[in-house]
Amino acid sequence: MADWQVIEGGVTAPKGFRAAGITAGLKPSGAPDLALILSDCDAIAAGVFTTSQVRAACVDYCQDVLENKPAARAILCNAGQANACTGEQGKQDALASAATTATALHLAPDQVLIASTGVIGQRVKIDALQAGIPDLVAALTTDGSDKAARAIVTTDLVTKSIALETQMGNRPVRIGGIAKGSGMIHPDMATMLGFITCDAAVSPQLWQDMLRRATEKSFNQITVDGDTSTNDCLLALANGESRTPAITTAGPAADKLEAMLTEVCIHLAKSITRDGEGATCLIEIEVTGAMSDRAANKIARTVAGSSLVKSAVFGRDPNWGRIAGAAGRAGIPFEQSDLSITLGNFTLMTHGTPQPFDRAAASHYLKQQAELSTSAMAKILLTNSHHSHDLQLTDTQTPSARQQIEIEALSHPVKIAINVGTGIGKGLAWGCDLSYDYVKINAEYTT
Amino acid sequence: MADWQVIEGGVTAPKGFRAAGITAGLKPSGAPDLALILSDCDAIAAGVFTTSQVRAACVDYCQDVLENKPAARAILCNAGQANACTGEQGKQDALASAATTATALHLAPDQVLIASTGVIGQRVKIDALQAGIPDLVAALTTDGSDKAARAIVTTDLVTKSIALETQMGNRPVRIGGIAKGSGMIHPDMATMLGFITCDAAVSPQLWQDMLRRATEKSFNQITVDGDTSTNDCLLALANGESRTPAITTAGPAADKLEAMLTEVCIHLAKSITRDGEGATCLIEIEVTGAMSDRAANKIARTVAGSSLVKSAVFGRDPNWGRIAGAAGRAGIPFEQSDLSITLGNFTLMTHGTPQPFDRAAASHYLKQQAELSTSAMAKILLTNSHHSHDLQLTDTQTPSARQQIEIEALSHPVKIAINVGTGIGKGLAWGCDLSYDYVKINAEYTT
Repeated sequence: MADWQVIEGGVTAPKGFRAAGITAGLKPSGAPDLALILSDCDAIAAGVFTTSQVRAACVDYCQDVLENKPAARAILCNAGQANACTGEQGKQDALASAATTATALHLAPDQVLIASTGVIGQRVKIDALQAGIPDLVAALTTDGSDKAARAIVTTDLVTKSIALETQMGNRPVRIGGIAKGSGMIHPDMATMLGFITCDAAVSPQLWQDMLRRATEKSFNQITVDGDTSTNDCLLALANGESRTPAITTAGPAADKLEAMLTEVCIHLAKSITRDGEGATCLIEIEVTGAMSDRAANKIARTVAGSSLVKSAVFGRDPNWGRIAGAAGRAGIPFEQSDLSITLGNFTLMTHGTPQPFDRAAASHYLKQQAELSTSAMAKILLTNSHHSHDLQLTDTQTPSARQQIEIEALSHPVKIAINVGTGIGKGLAWGCDLSYDYVKINAEYTT
Repeated sequence: MADWQVIEGGVTAPKGFRAAGITAGLKPSGAPDLALILSDCDAIAAGVFTTSQVRAACVDYCQDVLENKPAARAILCNAGQANACTGEQGKQDALASAATTATALHLAPDQVLIASTGVIGQRVKIDALQAGIPDLVAALTTDGSDKAARAIVTTDLVTKSIALETQMGNRPVRIGGIAKGSGMIHPDMATMLGFITCDAAVSPQLWQDMLRRATEKSFNQITVDGDTSTNDCLLALANGESRTPAITTAGPAADKLEAMLTEVCIHLAKSITRDGEGATCLIEIEVTGAMSDRAANKIARTVAGSSLVKSAVFGRDPNWGRIAGAAGRAGIPFEQSDLSITLGNFTLMTHGTPQPFDRAAASHYLKQQAELSTSAMAKILLTNSHHSHDLQLTDTQTPSARQQIEIEALSHPVKIAINVGTGIGKGLAWGCDLSYDYVKINAEYTT
């Protein structure tokens, strides 16, 4: 079913979308901080939001808008202030942001969705934001995805972007996405945001269901440190500009679109995880033989989130005991005599019994995967320092080359495969290693 | 109800108990590694065990014994090898350990409970263990608790011990306990073990219920990094040697005994958390206003386990946004307009609104609590290095002075109080900060 190809253009790859990113003066650093994505016609809109009880004003706003009508024309996103824990004033600022954008675009306010990321407890700098809207609208272009991707980052070391194209009835259908997040691990300046565009025609309920299922297999299966932000949100627009037949029921066309959407989400999710603060590599956990996919996913997530497994990978230590321990405490019943574990090509445990293996070679495998991934990342770093929160954009790579390198950086995960029995349930999860830099970044960002 | 006092003697403080700890040659370092606790008469026995699907042979053994008959005379514990993931041979070794101890004590094998801690996947060195049993039995004394406490540690920096005494019908009743664990965060050499002795007479079901409830308020409310060991176990013996009236039903006497048991468990649990690898302080989270104690406990646990909160405390950063974020994602519904947060005496947030506070003074509070705790810990350290796993015992403090200092080290927690509404539910949880040393210890212990 994976008959798609990677194309350029991010969220502006699908037909009928424009995007822009500018510096509006919200970040003290003067880095880009305001992004806009526009569909030239009404688009079906779906959203998935943080499950936290403590939510930013923009999250409440988008949920209200989409509950009322699952459609939108534009997504405005600011970086710098999260506009979370800002009470009634925060709500007013959110409404004002949407209204100003709508006016500039000649839209109704509820055709504009909004997202914020930055410091919790700080109001968005509403004057600067509103003053920036005309420039932002004027900057909209059909190749503006990269600029938008840059304007939504905070502590991210790299931008996150992807676009895929497939054929439906001999016409191209495209899905593009950009995201930000250094792994939900820095709520002052973090948050996971994802914006997806699609030019297929799809019914609202189907699109929302697809997005939810894709999220479960991607963003919900990654972990950097288990923390969830007040502002997490994923928004997806589908505008029908591909002029392919409308997808209104389950079937082969819907399956194909959902598979491609899932792939876009998985790419962005892995990209966020790889950029987890202090991480030197991506870890991919595959669990098979569980009673259900849900059970397998839970075991995979638990292993991916284990501080001990993460520390061991950073120490290049093929420590099967920690993997077995984490799998065992996931809350999913299995017989320990059924537990088998492989790391890359190394069999560490079979049916509950530790196996002899070449520890030095297995350690080398861990080291090598990290080196391959890190050297790719180094070519596309936005900054060398988390601490300034001032992103110096490197323009030594073109957007297209940057996307190639980003894919390369995700192509060398540390692979851990776990089998827990003969069930048909399988699942994948992604994590990153736990390094000194994680602690450094999160402890030294003091008030 | 807290009308007890701290006394000396640990697990040998209650009447009719003896204990010993020796070097049997199980640890490569030559540090003590074999401990025995003996009741002079049959004792009611209760146990709480790891919920992991991957369990050591000793855990299965104890569960089987106690299901069959909730009574025991002795607890044997070895450190060095966990005897987990060792298959059928591990089971045989566990049975042989119990049988040899029983023979030396002239008991039936099922009167001996066993526990192991050390490297996962390694068989216990059964020959050395069996050869050591006669010396171990010969070393049993009524003041042997401290030696036993030392023989069960692995990566612990300090021993963990407590004894409390109260009066029931004008006669003293005592509960003592020892524990080990550097926070379940090092499954190669970790595991949380707790052994409790009591000289009250109490019915088996009541004793088991009390232990389970006490565990829920203590060991289940601590977190260092969320990892659970294959060998975690808590065993409690009550031998009736206080000659106080048997407690067979719920009522004031049962409540009094349970409160004291809970206090013993909380002390040991906090002591383990304070000794979390790399920790510089103890963090105590109090949650009030929830719909139930269960809900409050879950929020408290989530905040205590947040890597972001832990990093912020290590960075001496009074970062209320991270506390609010962690509380919000605990999975317990509350209105964010009800959320109030204090840190020590500093009010950080009231009814969902951030409050102005003296950040420098709040940061100083965090620093001061860590310094007070760390300077107490420094006086009773068993070793300065985790890496050797070779504990150099410092004998510059007497057992009684050491217990005083241990209590002192727990007396300066960083206190975070969270109110989420007007419900009657309240809960406490304990954690520690996340430092560079956590990563160092867990990454550099390579194969």
